[in-house]
Parts: sequence; structure tokens; C-alpha cells
Amino acid sequence: MAQKPSIPKGTRDFNAEEVAKRSYIMETIKEQFQVYGFQPIETPSFENSDTLMGKYGDEGDRLIFKILNSGDFLRSFNENLIKTINTAVFNLGIGIREDENFDINKFEVNFIKKFPNILRSLKNIKFDESQINLENLTKDIWFRIREIVLKHEKLKAMLMIDDAHNRAILSNMIHGDFYFQLGNKYVGNYISEKALRYDLTVPFARYVVQHQNEIEFPFKRYQIQPVWRADRPQKGRFREFFQCDADVVGSKSLFQEVEFIQLYDAVFSALKLEGVTIKINNRKILSGIAEVIGAQDKLIDFTVALDKLDKIGEEKVKEEMRSKGISEEGISKLQPLFTLKGGFGEQIESLKSILSSSEIGLKGIEELEFINTAISNLKLKTATLQLDVTLARGLNYYTGAIFEVSAPEGVNMGSIGGGGRYDDLTGIFGLKDMSGVGISFGLDRIYLVLEELDLFPATIAESTKVIFINFGENEAMACLQAVTKLRQAGVKAELYPDAAKMKKQMNYANRRNIPFVVLVGEEELKSGVFALKNMASGEQHKVEFSALVELLGN
Amino acid sequence: MAQKPSIPKGTRDFNAEEVAKRSYIMETIKEQFQVYGFQPIETPSFENSDTLMGKYGDEGDRLIFKILNSGDFLRSFNENLIKTINTAVFNLGIGIREDENFDINKFEVNFIKKFPNILRSLKNIKFDESQINLENLTKDIWFRIREIVLKHEKLKAMLMIDDAHNRAILSNMIHGDFYFQLGNKYVGNYISEKALRYDLTVPFARYVVQHQNEIEFPFKRYQIQPVWRADRPQKGRFREFFQCDADVVGSKSLFQEVEFIQLYDAVFSALKLEGVTIKINNRKILSGIAEVIGAQDKLIDFTVALDKLDKIGEEKVKEEMRSKGISEEGISKLQPLFTLKGGFGEQIESLKSILSSSEIGLKGIEELEFINTAISNLKLKTATLQLDVTLARGLNYYTGAIFEVSAPEGVNMGSIGGGGRYDDLTGIFGLKDMSGVGISFGLDRIYLVLEELDLFPATIAESTKVIFINFGENEAMACLQAVTKLRQAGVKAELYPDAAKMKKQMNYANRRNIPFVVLVGEEELKSGVFALKNMASGEQHKVEFSALVELLGN
Repeated sequence: MAQKPSIPKGTRDFNAEEVAKRSYIMETIKEQFQVYGFQPIETPSFENSDTLMGKYGDEGDRLIFKILNSGDFLRSFNENLIKTINTAVFNLGIGIREDENFDINKFEVNFIKKFPNILRSLKNIKFDESQINLENLTKDIWFRIREIVLKHEKLKAMLMIDDAHNRAILSNMIHGDFYFQLGNKYVGNYISEKALRYDLTVPFARYVVQHQNEIEFPFKRYQIQPVWRADRPQKGRFREFFQCDADVVGSKSLFQEVEFIQLYDAVFSALKLEGVTIKINNRKILSGIAEVIGAQDKLIDFTVALDKLDKIGEEKVKEEMRSKGISEEGISKLQPLFTLKGGFGEQIESLKSILSSSEIGLKGIEELEFINTAISNLKLKTATLQLDVTLARGLNYYTGAIFEVSAPEGVNMGSIGGGGRYDDLTGIFGLKDMSGVGISFGLDRIYLVLEELDLFPATIAESTKVIFINFGENEAMACLQAVTKLRQAGVKAELYPDAAKMKKQMNYANRRNIPFVVLVGEEELKSGVFALKNMASGEQHKVEFSALVELLGN
Repeated sequence: MAQKPSIPKGTRDFNAEEVAKRSYIMETIKEQFQVYGFQPIETPSFENSDTLMGKYGDEGDRLIFKILNSGDFLRSFNENLIKTINTAVFNLGIGIREDENFDINKFEVNFIKKFPNILRSLKNIKFDESQINLENLTKDIWFRIREIVLKHEKLKAMLMIDDAHNRAILSNMIHGDFYFQLGNKYVGNYISEKALRYDLTVPFARYVVQHQNEIEFPFKRYQIQPVWRADRPQKGRFREFFQCDADVVGSKSLFQEVEFIQLYDAVFSALKLEGVTIKINNRKILSGIAEVIGAQDKLIDFTVALDKLDKIGEEKVKEEMRSKGISEEGISKLQPLFTLKGGFGEQIESLKSILSSSEIGLKGIEELEFINTAISNLKLKTATLQLDVTLARGLNYYTGAIFEVSAPEGVNMGSIGGGGRYDDLTGIFGLKDMSGVGISFGLDRIYLVLEELDLFPATIAESTKVIFINFGENEAMACLQAVTKLRQAGVKAELYPDAAKMKKQMNYANRRNIPFVVLVGEEELKSGVFALKNMASGEQHKVEFSALVELLGN
């Protein structure tokens, strides 16, 4: 390898300072998660593809990193596959040649029913059935045969002669097409059964269902782990990034929404990131508005348009709504929404009049009022709670509260956190009626905000406190005795490993920002003292070991 | 999805207690790494395949998890590939038909030279050249055409007629075969360019080379991250597991070997895992022995056999050596090795006489003596350093010291740590002469040992300290005030979210091992006191809030 090595696009190396800063954020979040009674779980980096696929919509599915079945799997699968295709073609050929009234539909029913057992009985084909579902494979192969061979007269004609060479040609074609169609829903993903997790929510739902008998509900869990997305990398968007999630599953109590708002406040206050805005909305409010304007069937179109109010303004939003077929009458009913003003309470009052005829809308208002009253009583430390009826993130699965946190005013950054309630988190895995509510922290963005506002503690990048200069084997040996004792006292201490030139060693200490250097030369060795140099001030003193521990210890 | 969801074999979910125990071990290791002056880095979970492949031998390569190029890549690649093959077949057909003296070798040279540019000029084929090397693709396609079409007369004959249908058949065949050969070294891995890291050493080497200008050498780094191996899962062997590595690169000083031994001792002492044995050997000793018995070319065979001494005994080891062609005279020279007895010093003396004629062997002895003397001076806290000339792990890359740590006597467990010195860590990435030395901790095995010896701190599984029973909205609201204040004082506190039956709530507290329960009913609400129940003793007292904080705070 001649050229300098690199890493895949969208991924990152982190140096010591970056690791320290990232773990400062994660540890702060973790501490508050625990204080709020959340328990950690961890799930594997990759899940069975079944678990993930189809949970994030088509766009999401496309962004899931799939893992190739490893080792010799691909080769042995291919060997078996081509033999299997050959066998299928052979059977089809017999069927066509020997049955004057050959009926493709009848043949298909029979083939799909019997072929898996034929495969099981063959000695030269051995699929690992724990990995390959033979029923699905049969259907997939049949589908390809039908599409390719039977729809092309020339190819079909090749089956009329019992000829191994013809069969080989057809089999190879089908094999090629099989791979061509991989990823297509008509062909199962035989070469990949595992995929890197795309978020922490679906693995959490899977965890809850899988371990339901070991879990006490309501289950409050937190999870801080990386996720992977094959998104086009761009500034602030990576293909590997950490998510920090807390969720409760198994209770519909609105006290949980209240506590999540407190939790956001607690974390950002602990990070000294004061003045964040916690925006809240409720899916029921959006449903109510859609109902009132007679656009229940256009809920998504309507909220997508409304969500853009900040960006494109009232007129453009209305235009978009019109273009999506929302009536002029409906839009005029929305007018109060565009001019919604004042604090939480005032906005609620306006909403009450807009939504007076919608049962679900009024339910949403009731929920928001409960949460707002509780938070007013409990008081937030540094954050502000704000009602935002245009907030619609993750509409497709949130069913109640919707949260989003924005950075303090003046910082140009998207949301630094978000979440909401979903009434049926675990239904996708067969466990019904499990209401869940959760929030997430955007680690990378929080990092950028803390960096921009210079809020990382100054001591964060401090690593080694003191380094002992190496003047040769004897001196170094004596130094290592002292270093050992300092380490036992918890002081981060090092010995420069080689008896290099003094200047080189001092430069090393300098560049690594090590604040203290100890020099033990022949003279110090004799008198048992240590010359301690403060690298910032340049001062140097000779001290006894006990003084050394005192000066360098915490 | 009807059946209960599961996770891929060889992977694990971790519940709260397991996460806590694992992070106790990792935090302990991390703390000592830092005290010893190591700095954290983190690298991406997946690397470019180039970076990993070919670094772990054939067996290792097979165990690397490869990531499928995601999203629409496969489909667009296939569409382009089949058009490309078709174009190539078209060109070959013209060549064969129009040139009476068609010379396949001449055609090949020309084709390989010109085809990449033809591909670049075609409008209907668009490869992403940042992902696909067209020169390699051309060679791979040509190789498949030559193997399939040109070696079969019937297929070759199809080229003699200029017929699109024939071409489609041939192209599909080649396409099928292309996939059949995937993973074969003759066909580049077009469908996968990334792979999950297999260990932390190769990514570290890559990191050092890539960031060499930002790094101060000697560079002491630690890294605690998961790695993935497609190994057959079995008891204690997983497909995803954490490695905890510390390495220094850029110095040959033996003080580093000394410090790594101290580091092992410090970590295991901090974990209260007393009595571990740190075994040490030196590759130079093994080279010296091989030299003395005239088996330099059989160094690996010889050490593999010697390594089994503990398991299969002296006679069987000798038998294996004979079978590998080591002479009787050589084996007899080894006799003192089999009976090597006594402490470090005595063994060294025996080795000196065995190795007196081997320069490299004596160098190895010198190194071991330096290390042993230093450790004797510095003293270990709870571990024992032991010379083990049969220790040969990772022989293929270690060049100096070799370490392995075994659990205290009586615990049946393989090595719980290992490491060594490698003279050319970064050479594989083009940075020469960088000596490195490092050690690793086996997290999963250490976990099992601590579990077996009951060494995890009793408090480790403690999560929530107190839960407030929910008697209804008003009481709950008052409780949440108290819970909020407790949390601000750092107490892990919860409010049961629903006004469920008392028994259900108490059961919940019980099953979750929450040690204290607070009950605030109507009466307590009026008088402003809290009924605090100790779940272990069953005792219950009414206390003021200040007493609550005092009793529950740390």
C-alpha cells in the first residue's frame, strides 16, 4: 500500500481531546439519565435484517448498511444456487417436453410446493437451512425462471431439447439475473442477513419484546451507542454517529412527558448550556386542526406545509396547502394559527377556540395544559418550554407529545434533541398496546454548540500531569520508582522512555501540554531530591518526594 | 412478524446489571491507562477493506465482516455491469469476425489497455469512479470472458454471428459467473468496499500513519471499542466483543515492557483480582533456541510444538518435533528446556548455558534480565511475573517481548490478557521502523472471572435509590416536587407514573430492588411529611423533607 491510508467517507477518527470532550457530554447525559431512574441497556451493533427492514420507510431502508454473509458463505451459496437453478430448469424441461397440455400455472403451484423437498433430498446440494429459507428461495427462483425463460420464445425453445449445454446456458442466465435483482423485493436478501442498526428505537422495541418476561414495566431504559446510516455525508452529518436515547415503555402517564422536559433541562443545565428552548406540540392538536379544516386525509401534507412556516412564511405555506388540495375555506379557518402569539397559556386559549369542535383536538389541548401546569409548578432551571403548533417531526409514528430542543438564541444550529410519544412501539414485533415516550440527545450538534460557546471545561484536555526526563538507565530506574508511587497516588505520570537529548524530551513535554517536568540527574539522584519544573511559568524548584506528591496530587 | 424477534448468533443484549458490571471493568482499566499516561483515541467501526484485508492471514480475512455497498448502489452497479459486459462481448465479436488472423493474446493486451476509456466515453454506462476502479473491472471482466466464452467452442461459435440475442445470453452468463466468482481473488470486491474492524491494532497502525504529522512520538494510546469476527460462536467466543488495548509506538526502550507489566498489576489489583500470573517470554529466545538446534527454518513448527508442553507433555511434544523434521540431536539439546525449573533468575541461568552460542538468544536473555531486575526493584502489588519459554502467542508478528496473563490459580479460564513487541507495526501502511509494544485486556473473560470469584462490588447493580408511590394526580404532583429536589441533590429517584394499585407499585419497587419507597397520601400531603419505607427491613417512618435528603443522599 503506497498511498497514505484513509477512512471511509462519513466516518471519523477521534483524537484524545475529542474523545475527552465527547465523553464529557455523554457522561453528563448518562449521569442525569441515572438520576432520573433510567437503566442502561446495550444491544448488538448488527441486528437480523428482518428486525430492521421495513421499519423506516423506503428511504430509511435504503440507508441501512447491510453486512455480507462472511467467509466462504458466498462461494458455497453460489455453488448450491447454480446447481439448484439447473435442477429447476431440468424439471421444467421435463414438464414441458412430456406434458402435451403443459399448463404453466399448474406447474407453478406444484413446483413451489414440491421443490423445497426435492432440494432437501439432493445429495449434491446442501443449503444451511438455518440461514436459507428454501420455500422463499424456491419462489424467488421460480419467479426469475418465469420472467426470463418462459416469456422469451427463443429461450423457451431451448427447453424442448434435453441438452445439458442448453441447460447450463439458461442456468447461468438466471443466476446472473438473480444477482441483478438482489435488493429487489422479489428476491430475498440471501447474501446478507444482518444489518448495522439504523437507530436505537427499533432495537429497543425488539429488546423489549424479546425480553418481556425479564422486564418490569413501566421500563425506563437509556442507551448510548453508535448507529450507522448510508446517508450522503455532509457537514455535521456522518455515516457513524452516537445516539443518546431515554425511553419509558408501558405507561400512558403524562407525568413522563413532564419528567422528560425536566430531564432535558437538567442535562443542558449540567452542561452549562443555558437558554435552550424545549418546543412541544401534540399530534392530537395536528389531527384536530386537520379535522376542523376537513383535511383528515391530508394530515401529512398539511403538517409538512405548516412545518415550513418559519422558513418560507405564511403566504408560501398557504400556497403549498392549496396545491395539495386543501380547501380555501379550510385555510381561512387556519388563519388564527398563523398569528398565534403570546406565551404557552395564551396560545392554548387561541387553540381552544380553533379546536372547539374537535374531540381529539381538545384532548391534545388537555394534555398540553397538564404538562404546562406541571412544569410551571416544578420550574425549569435554565431552559424554556415553548408551545409550537408547527412542530411535526416524526409525525408518522408519534401519537401524542412531540418534542424538539433548539440551541440558545444566536447559535445557528438545527435541533439538538427531540422525541415524543408513540402509542404502539412494540406492535411491529407482536407486543400490542405498549405506549412509549422517549427523547434523544444530538451528541454531535451539542458538541459543536459547546465548542462554539466555549463551554467545555478548561481541564478537559488535561492528560498527563508530569513527565520525568530520562538521563540514562540508572536515573530512569530511580525515576520509575517515583513515577510508580505517584501513579499509586492517582497522579497521571510518565517517564520519557529513552535517554534522548534533553531538548527533544522538553519539546515532547511542551507539545503534549504536560504542565510539569521532573529532572533527576546524577546530582539529584545522590541527594534524593527532584527538580520540578513548571512548564507554564518556567520556574524550577528542588523538592523532596513528599512535596512532589502534594504539589501534583489533586 | 409473528415469531418472537431474536438477535444474530454470537451477539448479545446486555441488561442494566451487565452494562454496569462491564463498565466497572472498563472504567477501572481506563483509569489505570490514564494514570500511566496513555491517551484515548477512537476509530470508525468500519474501515476501507484495503486497510484490513491481507493483514490477518487467510483465516483472519475469512472472518472479517464485509459491508455491502448500500442503497441503490448494487442495482446501479448491476445495470452498468451488464451493459459493460455486453459492450465487451460486442467488441470481442467484431474482433473475431473481422480479423481472419484473430490472436487472442493481442486482443487481450489491446482490450485491457483501451476498454477503460471506452467505458468512460459511453453515455449509457456511468460508473462512479470514486468507487469502481475501471482498470481492475476491465481485467476482471476479460478474465471471465476468456475463461467462459473463449474456452467453450459452442459459446465461441455464438460470437461468429452478429446477433443481439446471442450477445444477451452470453452477457447474462458472464454476469452470473462474475457473481459466482465474487470473493475469488480474480474478481475485485465491487459490491463491498468497507469492513467492520477485526481488531484495534491494524486500525491503530492506520491511525498512526494517517495522522503522523499531528502525533508526538513516542505515542502512548489506549482504545476501548468493539471489534467483530465472523468466528463460529461458542461458549465465551462472540462475534461482537470489546477489546481494551494500550500501545506505545515510536520507542524501543525496555522501560515500556516494564511499565506494561506494572500496568497489568495495577489494573488487576484495582479490580481486586489478586494472584494473577503475568507470563513473559521473548521472541529472540525462541529464535535463539531454533538456531542452537539447527531449526531456524522451522521456528514456527518448533514453537507451536513447544507451546503445547503444558497440555500434551514432554514426550508428545518431542514426537511432534520429530514429525516436523527437527533432528534427534536438536531435540536432545532441548532437554534442559523441558526440565526448566525454579524462579525467573534460575531459569535465566539455565537458558544462558543453552543459548551460549546464539547471539540473538543472548540478546533475548539480556532483555528479560533487564525487565526482571526492574520489576524486582519496583515490586508488583498482587501479580507475579513468570518466565515461560513455551509462550509463543502471536509469533508471526511479535519480535521481542511476549506477554500473557493467566487468572489466579484455581480459576479455569484461558488467558485474560496478552501482548508483546512488534518492531514494524506501521510498515504495512508505509511508515517504516516504528517499533511498538502493547497489551490487551480480555474483557469478557475478566468478567467471567470476577463473577466466579464474586469480586464485583455489591453496590454495582444499585440503580434507583427511592421510588415515590403514586396515589393520584394531586399527591403525585407533590411527590414530583420532592423527587425533583432529590434529583438535584444527586439522588436517583423516581415517581411511579400511574396511580395503580398500591400492591402493584410495591411489587414493582420490590422486583427492581429499589431499597426505599416513599408514600405520600392525603394525610402526609396535608401535614407535609413523607412516609419512608425501608424495603429490606420493612420499617417505615414519617420524616420531613430535609431528613429525606439526608437519609437518601450519599
